Amino acid sequence: MHVVVNAAMSADGKLSHRGREQVAISGPDDFDRVDRLRAESDAVLVGVGTVLADDPHLTLDDAERVDERVARGNSEHPSRVVADSRARTPTDARILDDAATTYVLVSDAAPENRVDALRDAGSEILAAGNERVDLAAAFEALADRGVDRIMVEGGGEVIFSLFDAGLVDELTVFVGPKIIGGRDAPTLADGDGFVDDFPALSLADVERLDGGVLLRWVPAEQPST
Amino acid sequence: MHVVVNAAMSADGKLSHRGREQVAISGPDDFDRVDRLRAESDAVLVGVGTVLADDPHLTLDDAERVDERVARGNSEHPSRVVADSRARTPTDARILDDAATTYVLVSDAAPENRVDALRDAGSEILAAGNERVDLAAAFEALADRGVDRIMVEGGGEVIFSLFDAGLVDELTVFVGPKIIGGRDAPTLADGDGFVDDFPALSLADVERLDGGVLLRWVPAEQPST
Repeated sequence: MHVVVNAAMSADGKLSHRGREQVAISGPDDFDRVDRLRAESDAVLVGVGTVLADDPHLTLDDAERVDERVARGNSEHPSRVVADSRARTPTDARILDDAATTYVLVSDAAPENRVDALRDAGSEILAAGNERVDLAAAFEALADRGVDRIMVEGGGEVIFSLFDAGLVDELTVFVGPKIIGGRDAPTLADGDGFVDDFPALSLADVERLDGGVLLRWVPAEQPST
Repeated sequence: MHVVVNAAMSADGKLSHRGREQVAISGPDDFDRVDRLRAESDAVLVGVGTVLADDPHLTLDDAERVDERVARGNSEHPSRVVADSRARTPTDARILDDAATTYVLVSDAAPENRVDALRDAGSEILAAGNERVDLAAAFEALADRGVDRIMVEGGGEVIFSLFDAGLVDELTVFVGPKIIGGRDAPTLADGDGFVDDFPALSLADVERLDGGVLLRWVPAEQPST
């Protein structure tokens, strides 16, 4: 499976401000790029923190792209995936509507009644891992369901977990023209963080866009000390 | 006074890992660029957190640049400045040696015995502000002492304070090819952070360097919502 992480961060590396409300970081050209990337993906993944903060729909904006997918024999929209160890996704989350298939990745620590509620709300539950979702195992289960290309749209917790599990094949980051600041503001990669063996990247592409810059990174051969 | 903030951050916006030990983010070309920027500055400023974590010397590496400064009638090295509201700089900090003039910016909340100790250790004390250093007033006091061009080398707390005070004229950021991660790791701009009226930037220059990219930002006309 090919895993692309995509995010927009401020010039100082923040995805949002300390109150975790959405901040406009990119602009129309980047939105269009993200929509195109979604259209090319079999599934779009977010962490439950993003669901709770933003309630995203994760469907395509551009009707032409929907038609192109259907013409290729695909579903109208990519599948939606939530990494949600404890099944905290609200049953009225937009991501659970019937616009596309939705998978919820849970761990064995998810309360059974919450898992049942999410299943009743129309999602397919994939359980892997004890306390936290085992993302590698969950991705294998997604691959068995035909997901070859997955796009990750954040937030920083799930992005860190993916780097920690060595699952990232590509990272595209729009760096936007503003400072958000804040020691408690969410960043591109949160979690516990690395203290050595930092995942090393290679800069594949640099492009100016929407007053900022789009950086495309791929994993380098060796971890960096 | 012209204020240039310069920093190297990981691809995910971190200056260091959660343990705040130095992480090699840039390489020889960026080190040389930073040394050149120091040589062109009248003073180099860091926050006390950086002094406590890294004990930097902040002098020039390149002997030719020292000679050029002297030929221009300047001191061998730029002055060194610590933003240190409570006068926590250790008296054996390398920044206090006699290689260059050192200013310690303190607030009225700094204990008198600590201020005396730092003065005895050879620094010049500039007091401004009640609980925290009033950076605008302190910079005026530096300007009175001939500092026209100041380079800020971090950390994230003082960089946030400078943006908060509207004192930044230029921000150069090397974005390096690794992921550090960590919700508690220091970022380019920490502090309380903004929740609205985000300082807006304009991207003046983009240059590939040392496997990463150097971004040069200048303030945009209007704050960004």
